[in-house]
Amino acid sequence: MTNELQNDLLIRACRRQNVERTPVWIMRQAGRYLPEYRAIREKNDFLTMCRTPELAAEITLQPVDIIGVDAAIIFSDILVVPEAMGMSLQFHEGRGPVFEHPLRTQADFDALQRVDIATELGYVLDALGLVRKALSGRVPLIGFAGAPWTLAAYMVEGQGSRNFVEIKKVMYCAPKMLTRLLDQLSNAVADYLIAQAAAGAQVLQVFDSWAGMLTPAHFHEFSLPYLKKIVEKVKPTGVPIIVFARDAGHSFQALADIGADVLSVSWEEDLATARMAVQGKVALQGNVDPCVLFSNPEIIRKEVVRCLQVFGGEPGHVFNLGHGILPQTPVANARAFVDAVKEESRRTRTLLEKQSN
Amino acid sequence: MTNELQNDLLIRACRRQNVERTPVWIMRQAGRYLPEYRAIREKNDFLTMCRTPELAAEITLQPVDIIGVDAAIIFSDILVVPEAMGMSLQFHEGRGPVFEHPLRTQADFDALQRVDIATELGYVLDALGLVRKALSGRVPLIGFAGAPWTLAAYMVEGQGSRNFVEIKKVMYCAPKMLTRLLDQLSNAVADYLIAQAAAGAQVLQVFDSWAGMLTPAHFHEFSLPYLKKIVEKVKPTGVPIIVFARDAGHSFQALADIGADVLSVSWEEDLATARMAVQGKVALQGNVDPCVLFSNPEIIRKEVVRCLQVFGGEPGHVFNLGHGILPQTPVANARAFVDAVKEESRRTRTLLEKQSN
Repeated sequence: MTNELQNDLLIRACRRQNVERTPVWIMRQAGRYLPEYRAIREKNDFLTMCRTPELAAEITLQPVDIIGVDAAIIFSDILVVPEAMGMSLQFHEGRGPVFEHPLRTQADFDALQRVDIATELGYVLDALGLVRKALSGRVPLIGFAGAPWTLAAYMVEGQGSRNFVEIKKVMYCAPKMLTRLLDQLSNAVADYLIAQAAAGAQVLQVFDSWAGMLTPAHFHEFSLPYLKKIVEKVKPTGVPIIVFARDAGHSFQALADIGADVLSVSWEEDLATARMAVQGKVALQGNVDPCVLFSNPEIIRKEVVRCLQVFGGEPGHVFNLGHGILPQTPVANARAFVDAVKEESRRTRTLLEKQSN
Repeated sequence: MTNELQNDLLIRACRRQNVERTPVWIMRQAGRYLPEYRAIREKNDFLTMCRTPELAAEITLQPVDIIGVDAAIIFSDILVVPEAMGMSLQFHEGRGPVFEHPLRTQADFDALQRVDIATELGYVLDALGLVRKALSGRVPLIGFAGAPWTLAAYMVEGQGSRNFVEIKKVMYCAPKMLTRLLDQLSNAVADYLIAQAAAGAQVLQVFDSWAGMLTPAHFHEFSLPYLKKIVEKVKPTGVPIIVFARDAGHSFQALADIGADVLSVSWEEDLATARMAVQGKVALQGNVDPCVLFSNPEIIRKEVVRCLQVFGGEPGHVFNLGHGILPQTPVANARAFVDAVKEESRRTRTLLEKQSN
């Protein structure tokens, strides 16, 4: 399938193969900073946008055309999996997605249903198909899912949280109830990612957005094993897998051994340190501070160069921000960021080739 | 002055001297989780409590009596320094302290005044005196201040922030304006800490609560040098200095060299890793997850033991949470935490002594 790709830079970078220049995409690139996105959002609520394949496909394609990224990522939300397990999901303006009835009792946990991906999440698979068709090989398409720990945290808290007291209570007082949920989620997420690959996703990313809410010891107990389980199940699809365990830099070494192709590095981490820790076992993605995009093209280029220098033209780097692009980001700066990566990384490669000739 | 102390465990632990058991105190121990605090808070607004020496002293003493910690920490707020520089501070319920007119223009920056500690912050010094008298040597008294980076972030944002876009704009686009402010703040904070020592503080802590909002490279540029400057200026007082650079675990090695006596370790970091990084140059403080206090005394004791084991009875450990105690924490659990540290650390020491005899 990837043979038809006109731009397969991302695929090759994920596999640590040589590339003419570093591929670049942006987490949340199909989002609120784009006026074209906001125009659709004005007429539809967030969950309708996720659930309507035509809308999701249109939004997914926007940044490919507008800012020139080297990949599309399907427009969706990580919480569609718990929703498919029977949890009612609402979207509250300003608060983001909220579960009306968070998991609090044993009965709540027991009521969760096994997910039938094709029927419950068919709308995402349909959107992937539409995007693949529309892209017709211009750039690869990324599918994604939330990591078990992050999903469990949302399901118990009911929404984003500052201190995650509720999920921590479960973790400390009823760890078996939590690990059973994490097992359930691992299976559902793995099945979902496999289905996305079958539906056309050419790269897969697992978002463990709340990995940083665990102590390092608890990360090893309640997140890492489940990430590993998912990667092992999805690996046979042959689709490259990116794992983003946000703020879990303490565990890069361990993360490099779970079988993922790429680790995404938060902006709070030092990319050179991450590179040393993973010892060439995986490619790295990242990791410019999203706030750089509030400066100007000149400063953006400087930060891009600083980040590129960590790899010095060597393979195994997927350029990205170290976290999602912020809603107030000027579009021109997002474009300047993408352009700077393309130009500067090509320049570095050309210099390297001249030196080796 | 410290000679009169009946309990000087904290002082000795800060200096990495032998102790019979590990001293313990809790960040935000004089705070909302205590009904006795809430009783005072109901009748007074937060800033009045800070500014009235009798109230501040009373609140400071509460946790010494109620939960039995090995130190008192003066009740105050890190934002009193920018306030003394001329910024109007308000306290909004639910949002915490807010600067009405955050620094945005060159003129805003230029308008900041040099602080005369004795006149502007005399109320804190008076409170320290009252507490010292009331304690009459029972436990040492800790003074504190905010770190320049964290204060600058608050002054530019105007309040706590999720992404710190405004201060980052200044950092990227006008770094000289920022470093000038950081210099000003370093001087004011150092003077303030020296004055606190003179007024009776027996240990000093610098809170860089937003250190984790900087990339590692920017932490080295915009936080570390200013922390170092403060420590160098305050060092001659002879009062032990604790530096809490929250979520800056990437820089433990560098932080161990700025001259501080103790580094406080966030709960998100691995204490054993921190210990290896600092190579015995400083004592370490921390680092139990504040959410553990929502479990029960048995689980709390298990986590306390896990944390104590990193030091295995060796000196240089100040027990604490890895961040401030949360407002909804049950008081009984805070007490169970303090008791567990006292009992378990004494037990470890006794075992060690038996082994060496």
